[in-house]
Amino acid sequence: MIFNEKANAIVGQSGGPTTAINATLAGVISAAVDSDKIEVIYGARNGVEGMLRDDIINLSEIFDCEEKEDKLKRLSATPAAALGSCRLKLPKTEDAENNEKYIKLFDFFKKNNIRYFFYIGGNDSMDTVSKLSSVCKYFSWDMNFVGVPKTIDNDLAVTDHTPGYGSAAKFIATVISEMLCDTAVYTVKAVTIVEIMGRDTGWLTAASALASANTGVAPDYIYLPERNFDYDEFFADIEKAFKKHPNVLIAVSEGLHFADGRLVGEGKQSGATDVFGHKYLEGTGKALEGAVKEHFGCKVRSVELNLPQRCAAHIASKTDIDESFGVGSAAVCASVSGESDCMMCIIRNDGEEYSVRYTPVSVSQVANKVKYVPNDFINEAGNGITEKAIDYMLPLVNGEAPYYTKNGLPEFFTLSF
Amino acid sequence: MIFNEKANAIVGQSGGPTTAINATLAGVISAAVDSDKIEVIYGARNGVEGMLRDDIINLSEIFDCEEKEDKLKRLSATPAAALGSCRLKLPKTEDAENNEKYIKLFDFFKKNNIRYFFYIGGNDSMDTVSKLSSVCKYFSWDMNFVGVPKTIDNDLAVTDHTPGYGSAAKFIATVISEMLCDTAVYTVKAVTIVEIMGRDTGWLTAASALASANTGVAPDYIYLPERNFDYDEFFADIEKAFKKHPNVLIAVSEGLHFADGRLVGEGKQSGATDVFGHKYLEGTGKALEGAVKEHFGCKVRSVELNLPQRCAAHIASKTDIDESFGVGSAAVCASVSGESDCMMCIIRNDGEEYSVRYTPVSVSQVANKVKYVPNDFINEAGNGITEKAIDYMLPLVNGEAPYYTKNGLPEFFTLSF
Repeated sequence: MIFNEKANAIVGQSGGPTTAINATLAGVISAAVDSDKIEVIYGARNGVEGMLRDDIINLSEIFDCEEKEDKLKRLSATPAAALGSCRLKLPKTEDAENNEKYIKLFDFFKKNNIRYFFYIGGNDSMDTVSKLSSVCKYFSWDMNFVGVPKTIDNDLAVTDHTPGYGSAAKFIATVISEMLCDTAVYTVKAVTIVEIMGRDTGWLTAASALASANTGVAPDYIYLPERNFDYDEFFADIEKAFKKHPNVLIAVSEGLHFADGRLVGEGKQSGATDVFGHKYLEGTGKALEGAVKEHFGCKVRSVELNLPQRCAAHIASKTDIDESFGVGSAAVCASVSGESDCMMCIIRNDGEEYSVRYTPVSVSQVANKVKYVPNDFINEAGNGITEKAIDYMLPLVNGEAPYYTKNGLPEFFTLSF
Repeated sequence: MIFNEKANAIVGQSGGPTTAINATLAGVISAAVDSDKIEVIYGARNGVEGMLRDDIINLSEIFDCEEKEDKLKRLSATPAAALGSCRLKLPKTEDAENNEKYIKLFDFFKKNNIRYFFYIGGNDSMDTVSKLSSVCKYFSWDMNFVGVPKTIDNDLAVTDHTPGYGSAAKFIATVISEMLCDTAVYTVKAVTIVEIMGRDTGWLTAASALASANTGVAPDYIYLPERNFDYDEFFADIEKAFKKHPNVLIAVSEGLHFADGRLVGEGKQSGATDVFGHKYLEGTGKALEGAVKEHFGCKVRSVELNLPQRCAAHIASKTDIDESFGVGSAAVCASVSGESDCMMCIIRNDGEEYSVRYTPVSVSQVANKVKYVPNDFINEAGNGITEKAIDYMLPLVNGEAPYYTKNGLPEFFTLSF
């Protein structure tokens, strides 16, 4: 809906942090401050949690000033959610008009004259956008709800890729490239297993193949959760690699599973789930390390890349940071133009040179769907990725994003609530 | 001994890789190529192993050319040992004249007219320098043996710090700073335990305190192996931190141990040792994660920083890379001036502004000794470090070293044998 009167906007961040999520926040703030439709842009602390407990910050006050550009750049170079995040899943929408949470939220929107709602997050956050859009009608308060994608996992539907993925992919490719130097120094037979984030999809693990872009040295094998894992084939693969060189490096997704669905890394915590019903995983790398040690009796090491995958701002992709900012700004433009119940998508333009555009897509096309690594990105043996996958990923890690240091150590931008 | 005739030199790399070990190699090559005392500088593949099997490369041929400076810079920006490494421990020196290894090595030196031997490595490598120096007399072949320090562990005696430490410290401080952003986003009680390399000494773990240099946010606690670990005090510390904020981040050394000497991370492999008799460790972080989960019932995550600590060339310290190059060059100058049986040390000059000089020190003062984090670097409670430690570490991580990329991904220099 298009609102003729100036109104206020609110932005929240939700789900797991990424290196680029603050660049998207910066993009939203930038466009909101510049928009003649938006009076004040508020930030909610910890996503909808902050809206429920009235914990908000006036972002216009902070950014609508002479130092705006510099502040936005510094915010963009700061990893993780500057507004804080949450994992709150809104209740089912049936009987929403009598549900305490929805009542509180719309009281909050009305009280603060909020007509524009921006939610930066992954799949679960799009679920929030979808639910709020659908219950809006019960509260006689018109509002536009726009989701802005964010996830290192790159598993959202429709969008060509997700903001945050490029920087995570760049960190992964870079450190694997460095580890390939490291593990090559000895002449003793050794296997290094690198466990990479990705419960259901192998997008991040696939990025390990980029390590070879300029060095010609790639992981020997790459196993994704899009294929069933089999120990016999795995051992046969390693046997083959040993014939070429003594140092074998293998990249695996944390969500690797057998044909029967059992997780390779199912550890002590099997059965435990988080609030969204996702299984906790423990130790795919560790499980494989033990198996290889037993089978080959050689030196084995497992490396879990862990948290730095989603917050290594010091090696962020310029392409990713620029697009993350761009998609945030585009969300504001779409919203004031009347778009709602949608997620902003990044669409890759045709043509030789890489370029993108931003388009709103109905959130129903996105929410609760998973985009897997396509078949033609994975080699026939299921232990590596194809040139097509490399071509897709390469532009996403391009360029070095600004990064601020003093005395050789990082400087970050913080919002004080 | 000073040799009047021009002779050849050999350089080898040994022990675990570091981000800066190739900068030292570049320093040795640079000075050797420029020296009027050295005819040819050879590189041995895999340290003394390469000398034993005649696997060497003529480095003068590669570097004594117009592109010398560019090649040396690119070599300096490449992590891990470009010559390859080894963990070969030379036999005891008694009866060396009848020992096959020593006989082979001196045959190799004579055959190739090698009078200058440079060995870039840690404690075990200095043991090699010491042994070769002491048995030299039995083989009627005069030679100068000079060790050049290299270890991320910073645990070598006499030298103010070791080449490689600054870059590892910078990586650790940077990613911990980023992880402190990441872990702060949620409101749910959670403990993050970061396991940092360091079996016997806490130098690397201490560097986690640098995370706060510009952000003001440091790990809540830092536990080093220089102090006995106690679970009751550990739980009491965490309890105290929870009173300040829900997200607690703790940095621990892999070599953390109890008062009775037992390792906190002693896992399935207890008892296993490497060829130097060092114990293999498994999972200090994992052990603490389990204990905290059991005690507090809250969300706990352990992060092992692992291999990138010693090879993250993309975030190398300029100070470290420059000094690593400098100490390598200085080793050549010392050697052609007659020094032998010594290790080049970095000595910090007095004065307000940080500066260093390089000095040879008898290897007997260094070999098989361990430099621990001094008492006045650790706080009274044994769970953090002091301002004095920060002042010591801060200059070592300063500056961004050159790093070469194409399309956003690293380019490395390789030596083809």
